[in-house]
Amino acid sequence: MEDTRSKRVPLLMDVSHTVFLRGDNLVLIDRRYLPRAIVEVVCSDHEAVAQAIEAMVVQGAGDIAIAAGYGLYLAARQVAGGSNSEKAWQSLQEAKQRLTATRPTGYHLAALLGWLLKRVEVDKPNWSEQILAALQRAIERQRQRSRYTGEWAETLLVDGDIILTHCFPGAGLLYMLQKAAARGKRIEVVATETRPYLQGARLTAWAVSELGVPVTLITDNMAAYCMSSGKISKIFTAADRIALDGTVANKVGTFQLALAAHYHRLPFYVLGYGGPDSRCATGRDIPIEIRDPEEVLCFNGERITGDKVQGFYPAFDLTPPFLINGIVTDRGILEAERISDYWTLESGMMPP
Amino acid sequence: MEDTRSKRVPLLMDVSHTVFLRGDNLVLIDRRYLPRAIVEVVCSDHEAVAQAIEAMVVQGAGDIAIAAGYGLYLAARQVAGGSNSEKAWQSLQEAKQRLTATRPTGYHLAALLGWLLKRVEVDKPNWSEQILAALQRAIERQRQRSRYTGEWAETLLVDGDIILTHCFPGAGLLYMLQKAAARGKRIEVVATETRPYLQGARLTAWAVSELGVPVTLITDNMAAYCMSSGKISKIFTAADRIALDGTVANKVGTFQLALAAHYHRLPFYVLGYGGPDSRCATGRDIPIEIRDPEEVLCFNGERITGDKVQGFYPAFDLTPPFLINGIVTDRGILEAERISDYWTLESGMMPP
Repeated sequence: MEDTRSKRVPLLMDVSHTVFLRGDNLVLIDRRYLPRAIVEVVCSDHEAVAQAIEAMVVQGAGDIAIAAGYGLYLAARQVAGGSNSEKAWQSLQEAKQRLTATRPTGYHLAALLGWLLKRVEVDKPNWSEQILAALQRAIERQRQRSRYTGEWAETLLVDGDIILTHCFPGAGLLYMLQKAAARGKRIEVVATETRPYLQGARLTAWAVSELGVPVTLITDNMAAYCMSSGKISKIFTAADRIALDGTVANKVGTFQLALAAHYHRLPFYVLGYGGPDSRCATGRDIPIEIRDPEEVLCFNGERITGDKVQGFYPAFDLTPPFLINGIVTDRGILEAERISDYWTLESGMMPP
Repeated sequence: MEDTRSKRVPLLMDVSHTVFLRGDNLVLIDRRYLPRAIVEVVCSDHEAVAQAIEAMVVQGAGDIAIAAGYGLYLAARQVAGGSNSEKAWQSLQEAKQRLTATRPTGYHLAALLGWLLKRVEVDKPNWSEQILAALQRAIERQRQRSRYTGEWAETLLVDGDIILTHCFPGAGLLYMLQKAAARGKRIEVVATETRPYLQGARLTAWAVSELGVPVTLITDNMAAYCMSSGKISKIFTAADRIALDGTVANKVGTFQLALAAHYHRLPFYVLGYGGPDSRCATGRDIPIEIRDPEEVLCFNGERITGDKVQGFYPAFDLTPPFLINGIVTDRGILEAERISDYWTLESGMMPP
């Protein structure tokens, strides 16, 4: 354990602060213990990375994908080692499948692993180095996407806005707030704690407070009350996956926030980073991960209910496009129903 | 500490299991530790009772009122003791005010304390005995109200219903389920955990499971997902106070459940027990208790977010009547907008 919080603030602004190589291992800063403790999970092979992803050591669709990408790199180092036989290639495919299966809902995981494998020139020996080089490009692309998405989102803000958010919507939220501050807009944030993993309390509220932006924590059931009493002006969440019809899969609870926002006529925006998943025509094509109910029945390892009570843990939900006022991507802001226009927008253009 | 769970099942079916006199003291079973431990809080005077109510040792508008009634009895025993001077009467009034101020939102607390004091014949010496006798009648009345409300609610159920509920809606829910089982209706319950105090996990889910009814626990942010995926057929919550226009004040989170139910066209019912508060014309007349934000920032005494994060803890919210499909009282079921008809209904009539 090492206190790396002082290295860069906020820690969660860049994936390289919490997911990085050290020697032959991948180090993951365990997000389940943030911000109270900096706990390192050290992974020496892709199976360890897969288990860490399943256990939610890493969080957020983009960062999960990067961690899995390093897992693929570790697998390539193991299987290849100079040889590039058919058997080695099959082992690498199996590692990819193992890593892909860890979290079904997020778009980026399968997409990045597929992209990384396609970058490998199989007849050259240095698979792992090829994967690592491609992964570094992907990290740089994600970094730029987060910044551009945040800066486009900032154009939606006016001085005095109070932003409600849910779970940890990624570095885009932090870039948005940083840019707003630089432009003299006074923004406040209200974060839902986001049970059962408390990402809103442990990650979002903490990261926003590290930026120096005023932030207030509420429990998940207080959102509609806060909207009705005038404490919220806009809502921003992330998206783990976006279908071509504009349906957004995101951390469970997003849908009921969108319903409450709609009733209160408050704009509901989604940080959509790299756009939709071209393989999902509608929300019905997005698989919803159902996690172990024990994670609902217990808190800090202690059971919070009777022994005969069952639990249910859908980790994501689907928000239909008519509840969404705009999807903010790295290329600009789109109506949810027009999200497939993403590919027609110019990429790499600086937000205003 | 004593395990009283085996005495009667479920413990929460009757206030006398958790709020009772032992010798000169009032004993409260601390609901914050249920169901994992039976912890007794022993109160020797009304100030101890007031502090226990503030700390949420007792829960539920009706049971809070009963506990406060015992507090008034303890105060009467102290101040009167045979004398019935003006000073003693003033002390009793002050005790009443202290107890009334503990929780502002619930209707029953102030109403019962006022009713108890009005029962006292001031020129007779035995104030405490008079209060105790009146309190016992009030407890009997509450018991009957819970049973009748539950049995009226049962008429709304059909075989196969899956009921979503929030917080602990009182013994009426348990009577409803008991009656449904006796009539051969197979009912299941889904309980929201109800942060920050987890009454849904610790009280409702446990009590329902003790009845032998299948019950599933979810976090507060999963309700809309469960509705959208067909896992819920009806919603029942309680009411801490009902205005004459049919607005319902209840545990924070009720409002956003009602919004989600409305969107999914699922019936949303309120267990309204003894009807509306005649002094509240509209929801704007109901005070919403704002509690200590520390209770949101911490879990089990451990802070769950960064040190610079603020908290906000509204304990109740307001659900407008158009979102409510019916208010179930001990005298029958009313449209929310017609709740003031409660007084025109016959009282003490057995539900069908």
